[in-house]
Amino acid sequence: MEKKYVDYGSCAAGKPGTTKEITGARFNLSPMSDDFERIILNAIKQVDLSKVWAETDHISTVYRGREEAVFDALKAAYLLAYEKGTHMTLEATISKGCPGDRDSDYTLEFENPRINQKDTQAIDFPVIGKYALYPMGSDNYMATIAEVVNEGIDRGVVTGSGHYGTNLGGNVQDLFDYLEYVSHTVGKTVSHYIIQFTLHCNVPEGEIK
Amino acid sequence: MEKKYVDYGSCAAGKPGTTKEITGARFNLSPMSDDFERIILNAIKQVDLSKVWAETDHISTVYRGREEAVFDALKAAYLLAYEKGTHMTLEATISKGCPGDRDSDYTLEFENPRINQKDTQAIDFPVIGKYALYPMGSDNYMATIAEVVNEGIDRGVVTGSGHYGTNLGGNVQDLFDYLEYVSHTVGKTVSHYIIQFTLHCNVPEGEIK
Repeated sequence: MEKKYVDYGSCAAGKPGTTKEITGARFNLSPMSDDFERIILNAIKQVDLSKVWAETDHISTVYRGREEAVFDALKAAYLLAYEKGTHMTLEATISKGCPGDRDSDYTLEFENPRINQKDTQAIDFPVIGKYALYPMGSDNYMATIAEVVNEGIDRGVVTGSGHYGTNLGGNVQDLFDYLEYVSHTVGKTVSHYIIQFTLHCNVPEGEIK
Repeated sequence: MEKKYVDYGSCAAGKPGTTKEITGARFNLSPMSDDFERIILNAIKQVDLSKVWAETDHISTVYRGREEAVFDALKAAYLLAYEKGTHMTLEATISKGCPGDRDSDYTLEFENPRINQKDTQAIDFPVIGKYALYPMGSDNYMATIAEVVNEGIDRGVVTGSGHYGTNLGGNVQDLFDYLEYVSHTVGKTVSHYIIQFTLHCNVPEGEIK
């Protein structure tokens, strides 16, 4: 069988592969329950996907479209999967401007991008987690990271710095507002960036020994 | 209360914040089982941590040290948490050379870094997943990514490219060998890089509707 090698030869930093303003999210829900399959699939099915391009396979789910629409759908997937008492982790990659991206697999609806807001605005619960921001192709990336981390400290949702990430804590609605702010702020000055974050709800209490 | 803002002002691309060759991993195990707490804590406790610096809190676990020792401990955490039939996700960030890093919180033992190998070498199982590589502070990052992806195609562990990541599949031992190869190869030429990966075992079969 012939091997299909990749070649990103025409890609260059600062030149997004797509000419559109496509933001993407690739994520996993991990409900730590024997009933995980029902919880995941029920949530994924409930999300209104009319404002994003979406694909779910056995590895993860991808949403692509306008920034507001992608965050709206991603938040909906997590909030609609929430069950009282069930420990659940959301791991998500937000990405924009990748030189290897293409003008395909997207929806850019300009009307009412936050289509899931009405179904999710009343759902709120405490979470803890972490995120890391990777501004690509830039030498001055630490200053960009410091700016948005400090905004998180002002908002009270950044709870500390750990190795390889910044710690998050607060209500899930505030956390999603903050993460969307990070994406939006960085996107104004950085051509290609990635935000990697993890949120945990219903975290078991007590000391870890 | 006074807010403790961050300031990465003296950090610069290409100048790792630590003078040592410290590789780090920050990770989460998510066994999708009612018994998740026992599975996670039992595994974490079984890992021999004498060759890495380690810290577990409610958000994640961090290992820091020599590259071989960190990969050895990380692989052990996942393999020792494996239970037949239990769907489980490992999400991990591998990082090296961060300008914001410090010469603290590490162990650099030079004897026998793969201390867990004897307990994990007989454990193997199929996994699927994805990874992304972020070479920081470099304009030519897509070429670096292409090189290691193509090696994964040769090894048969890279199964395709998706949005925002490269798909992985194969036996878990081969996958860890490959991910360590990626880290080692990129580390030879890139001062600061991150590898973000996700592995799933015991994935439910059948179509996703």
